[in-house]
Amino acid sequence: MGPEATADLYLRITQNTTAQTDQDHLHIIVDSNAKIPSRQAAVLEGGEKPTAAMCETARNLQQAGADFLVIPCNAAHIFLQPVIESVTIPILSIIDETVRAVVNQVPGIAKVGLLASTAIVKTGVYADAFARKGIDTLVPAPEDQQAVLNAIFAIKAGNKSKEVRDSLHRVVSALIRQGAEAIVLACTELPLVLSHEDFPTPVVNPTEELARAAVREATGA
Amino acid sequence: MGPEATADLYLRITQNTTAQTDQDHLHIIVDSNAKIPSRQAAVLEGGEKPTAAMCETARNLQQAGADFLVIPCNAAHIFLQPVIESVTIPILSIIDETVRAVVNQVPGIAKVGLLASTAIVKTGVYADAFARKGIDTLVPAPEDQQAVLNAIFAIKAGNKSKEVRDSLHRVVSALIRQGAEAIVLACTELPLVLSHEDFPTPVVNPTEELARAAVREATGA
Repeated sequence: MGPEATADLYLRITQNTTAQTDQDHLHIIVDSNAKIPSRQAAVLEGGEKPTAAMCETARNLQQAGADFLVIPCNAAHIFLQPVIESVTIPILSIIDETVRAVVNQVPGIAKVGLLASTAIVKTGVYADAFARKGIDTLVPAPEDQQAVLNAIFAIKAGNKSKEVRDSLHRVVSALIRQGAEAIVLACTELPLVLSHEDFPTPVVNPTEELARAAVREATGA
Repeated sequence: MGPEATADLYLRITQNTTAQTDQDHLHIIVDSNAKIPSRQAAVLEGGEKPTAAMCETARNLQQAGADFLVIPCNAAHIFLQPVIESVTIPILSIIDETVRAVVNQVPGIAKVGLLASTAIVKTGVYADAFARKGIDTLVPAPEDQQAVLNAIFAIKAGNKSKEVRDSLHRVVSALIRQGAEAIVLACTELPLVLSHEDFPTPVVNPTEELARAAVREATGA
């Protein structure tokens, strides 16, 4: 739920909408609530959980007229269940949409590589979802995982340098060497600096999958 | 209020905010209401006015907790007064912020060139505001103005081709030849394809000025 990741999702929804004029677009309401506590600090350091602020934001969007919700933060989905229960409208899951995309794009895949924040890796929310489809999840070695988390916080601070990108490229290369048949960029900051064109294996971008799901849900397509 | 112009304003607010983490950012609520009728059609063709939908959207944002409002559409400001009266929170004016920026950036300026939608030119909302500062407003010749409006609708339809940019460059060059000492890109679609680096004269981008004003208002800076 970094603001740039939020704009990325919003623009991807716009780009996935067939529109010639302003009026052809979907009605989108965004509540970019910077006061939602860090998902990483909650999982890794026992910090304040983001759940209450997420529930409040979800209710605010429902009150403002939203028919369904999407959340442009993978790690926020660790705390999803109480948020689902706090509103009467559906919340599309970035994890469900991503797992579906991986299965569709790489039929028969056995091993997926996960580039994600450490909270995602520790809680296993993606690994569990992939396991239910019979897919093993490869995660970076501990130092590499720390490099990924450092890169995520650097991007949030506006640093998209070659050094940051290179550190992520090294981790992805290691996952591919270990047998990953696809790479999931499971933090919404990562697609801000990495592209599917950067790697020889298929790369699945959860932000893009969530955008497509939102357009499908909104248009009934 | 094209969705890409809305994202542009949102990102400019983010970039103008001093932030190292998600939590340092401002709380921004966006109501991107595609059902607001065309401002051009309302002025040029007697189409449905956007006023009622703008008032409804403004009230929705106030209800959702906004302390003040900004509207990323210059032409929407033609209809601003009833919207101001529909809420109890302030609305920052993109026109006022832009006029202030022109006066600050080009002290003593006598003639400003206006690249804007035809609704803006016809209603004179910018020309009147500049006149109150003793500044003359130069607008394109009729065929050139039609080229600008065509370019704006092309950008809204996702066309950012060299042809579209070239047509705008020709109009700006004509305004500079007529004596414009600064150019105002007074439609929020225009900065999506034009940059201040493209021209020898100062270029003022109302979207950027509105973003800076929003950060000032929110932070009390």
